[in-house]
Amino acid sequence: MKLIEKTLNEKTIYEGSFLKLIKQEVLLPDGNIAKRDILRHPGAVAIIAFKDENTVVMVEQYRKAIDRVLLEIPAGKLEKDEDILECARRELEEEIGYTSNDIEYLGNFITAPGFCDEVIHLFKAKNLKEKFAKGDDDEFINIKEFSLEEIKRLIKNGIIVDCKTIAALQYI
Amino acid sequence: MKLIEKTLNEKTIYEGSFLKLIKQEVLLPDGNIAKRDILRHPGAVAIIAFKDENTVVMVEQYRKAIDRVLLEIPAGKLEKDEDILECARRELEEEIGYTSNDIEYLGNFITAPGFCDEVIHLFKAKNLKEKFAKGDDDEFINIKEFSLEEIKRLIKNGIIVDCKTIAALQYI
Repeated sequence: MKLIEKTLNEKTIYEGSFLKLIKQEVLLPDGNIAKRDILRHPGAVAIIAFKDENTVVMVEQYRKAIDRVLLEIPAGKLEKDEDILECARRELEEEIGYTSNDIEYLGNFITAPGFCDEVIHLFKAKNLKEKFAKGDDDEFINIKEFSLEEIKRLIKNGIIVDCKTIAALQYI
Repeated sequence: MKLIEKTLNEKTIYEGSFLKLIKQEVLLPDGNIAKRDILRHPGAVAIIAFKDENTVVMVEQYRKAIDRVLLEIPAGKLEKDEDILECARRELEEEIGYTSNDIEYLGNFITAPGFCDEVIHLFKAKNLKEKFAKGDDDEFINIKEFSLEEIKRLIKNGIIVDCKTIAALQYI
């Protein structure tokens, strides 16, 4: 079956500091017309940071959208024109206070393709070197370490609910 | 470290057919004030539908937000006041044309907690019975079947990039 929808027109509803909401009118495969609300996102990186062979550095942070503190792998939005590896290095340092000369690209995935174009580029970092006192000045984060087995148990128990963190395990 | 941000005020920027964009002013843990753009989503279900012990029914559909056809497990938004199990039954029938008397709840996860409150409730369906000709009238979907090993290979090869589909494997 032919699946593609052609854009007939597009208008910007809102442009924020990093999100942009647009409304499109599209031509469906059967010739009908429909509307699509789409959120444009700059993209992001996430890092599985190995402190040793079986210990992963995680961050605990409050997420206003869901009014909960979540346990996640370190991640962050791409800045304008930023290279994804540079972004991974920056977030590793800013969020958890480490540098690494052994960062490997694992793949990428789309977080919410039904309405948003966010791509998360996933990296694995090893040989972590502590750079400075952990935590960034204007981010409020607790840094914690877990074994891979603990992380899997926390997913099973419903304690870890962040989709990118859960998906990331599939790449290692 | 204290992590919670208190809402000082909130206004609606846009309300669409299922998405609502709001802007909040929040009090940070250090006493400073910041703005947060938040997307409200009704929530969704996703189903790992087993045709037999090792064969999973997937859907191929065009996603306007990323202008690509994605291979995903069946999923769909919750209707107003809809029970999550009822929604899973409805999506199983509407998207892939099956009923099941053996649907098990596996857990839930948050797709994009940095800016959106979408929760996906994950189910496993077994003993599938074909209900009618596959595919819904106003959805444009190709239905395909894969073994779990094929799905894992398609993730590794970067063919499957849908985060909920990748995360779902962690629950089975």
